[in-house]
This record gives sequence, structure tokens and C-alpha cells, in this order.
Amino acid sequence: MLSKAKIKYILSLQKKKVRIKEQAFVVEGEKIAAEVLNQNYFKVHSIYATEIWINNNKTIANQYKTKLTTILPKELKKISTLKSPKEILLIIKTPNNTPLVKNIQNSFNLVLENIQDPGNLGTIIRIADWFGIPNIFCSEGCVDVYNSKVIQASMGSFLRVKIQYVPIEKLFLRNPSMTIYGAVLGGQNVNKTDLKDTGFLLIGNEGKGLSKNIQKHINHPITIPKTGSAESLNAAVATGILCAFFKL
Amino acid sequence: MLSKAKIKYILSLQKKKVRIKEQAFVVEGEKIAAEVLNQNYFKVHSIYATEIWINNNKTIANQYKTKLTTILPKELKKISTLKSPKEILLIIKTPNNTPLVKNIQNSFNLVLENIQDPGNLGTIIRIADWFGIPNIFCSEGCVDVYNSKVIQASMGSFLRVKIQYVPIEKLFLRNPSMTIYGAVLGGQNVNKTDLKDTGFLLIGNEGKGLSKNIQKHINHPITIPKTGSAESLNAAVATGILCAFFKL
Repeated sequence: MLSKAKIKYILSLQKKKVRIKEQAFVVEGEKIAAEVLNQNYFKVHSIYATEIWINNNKTIANQYKTKLTTILPKELKKISTLKSPKEILLIIKTPNNTPLVKNIQNSFNLVLENIQDPGNLGTIIRIADWFGIPNIFCSEGCVDVYNSKVIQASMGSFLRVKIQYVPIEKLFLRNPSMTIYGAVLGGQNVNKTDLKDTGFLLIGNEGKGLSKNIQKHINHPITIPKTGSAESLNAAVATGILCAFFKL
Repeated sequence: MLSKAKIKYILSLQKKKVRIKEQAFVVEGEKIAAEVLNQNYFKVHSIYATEIWINNNKTIANQYKTKLTTILPKELKKISTLKSPKEILLIIKTPNNTPLVKNIQNSFNLVLENIQDPGNLGTIIRIADWFGIPNIFCSEGCVDVYNSKVIQASMGSFLRVKIQYVPIEKLFLRNPSMTIYGAVLGGQNVNKTDLKDTGFLLIGNEGKGLSKNIQKHINHPITIPKTGSAESLNAAVATGILCAFFKL
């Protein structure tokens, strides 16, 4: 049975400032739950699950029994942000320390400037995870990674890809020898470019692209040539295409 | 001023069966409106716009004045499905005749089996438009192209790409000499495959992939190799990556 106060608390975690204050965020659904409950880096604060989930996951439910509240489907509906709630909702603690980003110099890193659509950020995290890209650097203007829609769109990939919010100009200045690839109009055809497997790949905002201040740091502008008529590609799709050319 | 009945009617167009009965669908936002009002294939039934839009678009507003109703921002909010309504909403007539799909044999065509997420379908239409892919064939199990979320995600590309709902097995049987590329696990690395610029590229459902019945028609299975850990890629991202390798 869920109290009104508890429902209110869980729903309040949809707000970034509450997430920061409480150092917690929400994850939903059986698939992502299975991944979260199978790792140790992100600590589980509490679990709200239906009888169905508990019956299907007896071992793990027993292992987490002190943190588990059994709820009715109609109660899940009250705390869920999904159209079709999926048997389980978890509250996860935000890691205390920003995850360490190692080997910047020796790896291929994504850098996002002001990606604002939560679905896009989540999908980009999933792309990074697919291609084994270890680090994503987000400008402060990007949507919060612990936003529920980001977490859901990432499909559990937020557990594996290290995401840091940084002033991206400083990041470039601290790593002056690294190649900075930037997705711009009028760059080199990505399929006809010599792509290194280390460096930064810089992706801009959905509507505005990369800001002028950031563009001037690019030493290798690249482009997905348009052979048709659309004005632009979705930011996550463009990121996926570029990563594929780097990684395949 | 919008009557209650009019508001109810516009909102009812969110339902597929009403769209079919009324042969009409909704388009929102200044950018897509500009594209719609600049072409002739899709006929405009009515326009609901704020003073702001009308002042910014005097010539076109005058041209369409018999179809135009000036509404207040708070009225737009009542009929819009967007979180932040964007000054204009149009009701468009569904074309009477299914658009003619020409040159199947001589072109590269997308075939979608049971793509159910409207954002994915819209994004795929935008990808097709970017790469100049003229035709998309959808199985009957795909989400309706005139769903508002599909239209909005397509960003106006639905105006240029020809989309047909067909029994896709029949389509293949009618075109026996064409190459059928299929996105599957364990196919050939798309970056190491000889890709022709004609044929069908077959993409499956978000969660289930391609059905067995459809898979047996594939004569060229292709894959985006995973170099990391995510279980899968988003369907629209995968489509974008595959199309890029075919087209660039």
C-alpha cells in the first residue's frame, strides 16, 4: 500500500532540482530493472513492484526484500511516467562521485553541446554503448541524464557509458593534442575521411547545431552528405551514422 | 473563437478511425506549416493560427484566408498535442488516391515490418528524405503515418517520401528479381558488403525484429556489428546507419 506522501515523493523525482537534493532518480520496467539489479555501481534505494514481477523474479526479489514494496497495478500507474507501466519502478541513488573517465587520450569520446531532447540523449547513450564508446561529455546545457525519459530511452546503457557534465571548451583546452571531429554542414564527407580511433566527436543542438564558440575548436569538420531533400537529420540518428563510420 | 464542438472534432483526429472516416489529419508548428502551405499534393482543409503566426506570414495568411481561423494561444493549447504549441495547427486532407510508387525496380526502397513507435516511423521518413529514398513500404502492422507523432517527427518529410501500406510478402513475390537486404543479427557486416543502389532494405519491429515469415525472403542479410555492450540499437538509428552505408 502506497501512502499519498510516498506517491508525491516519487513523482517529485521527475524534477531535476528534487533529484539533485535527494541524490536519487527513477528507473522503470522489467528489462532495465534486471540490468540495474545485476550491477553494483548504482545503488538501489527502493523497489516498487507488482505481484507479477515478484513471482517472475523470486530470487532477486528475495535478495532485495528489505527494499521492496509490493504494490497493485493501479498504484504503479499513479507513480509511473510510462503510458503502459511495466510491473516495476526503482528509485536509484545518484553515484556520490562523478564516475571517473579514464583514458580520454586513448579513446574515442562523444561530446554533446546542448542536446535538449531527453529521447535523443538516451538514444545517444545507447549508441555509445553499442559501439563501445566509453565516455560522453555533455555541456551544461544538455538535458539531465537522470531525467526519466533519458534513462528509459537509454535502455540500461546509462549503467555502462560514463557521462560527465563539463564546460566543453575547458575539456578541449586541457587536451590540446587530441583530434576534435565536429558534425557540421559543409565538412568532409564522413565516408571519405580518414577517421582515427581516438579523439572527440562533437555533436550540436537539435535545432541550432554547434555554437560558433565551440565550432572554432574543431580541427576536423565532418558531414553526412545529403542526397535528398530533408532539412536535417535527427541528432541521435546523425550521431549513430557518424559513430558507425568511426567504429565499423 | 473556437466552439466546443470544433475543439472536440480536432482532438478526435488523434484517433486513426476518425482520421480514416474524415480523410483528414493534423499538422502542427510553423516549420512544417510553411512546407505544407508551399506544396499542392496534400490539400489544406483548415488552418488555426495565432495573431503572431498571421503577422509573421501575412502573404500566405491572406492567400488562405477563407480557410483560416484566428485563435488565441490558450485556444491553441486546447487543440494541440504538443507540450509547447507552436502558433499554428492545420487540418490536412488525406490524399484520395494512394500516391503512386514509381520505379520500384530502379530504386532503393525501404520496407518496414511492424514499426510501432510513431517517433521511429517519423524519424525513418526523415532519414529516407535526407538520403533521397523515394518509397517506404509499411506492413499493415506499422503505426499509421497520419498519427500526429509520426507527422511531427517526420518534420515535413512525409510530404516528399511516398509511403504505402502493403502486404509485404506480396510485394516481394511481385518483384522476384530484386535484391532483398534484411537487417538481422548475424548477417554480413554492412561496411564489408557490396551494396547495390537498387533493391529493398527490410527493417523489423523495435522489440522483435523481423518475423520468420518475412526473414525467409531475405537474400542478403546485413548487420551493424556491435563493438560494445548494448542489447540493441534504436530502430530508426539502425535504419539511418544502414541507409548511410547504401547511399554514401
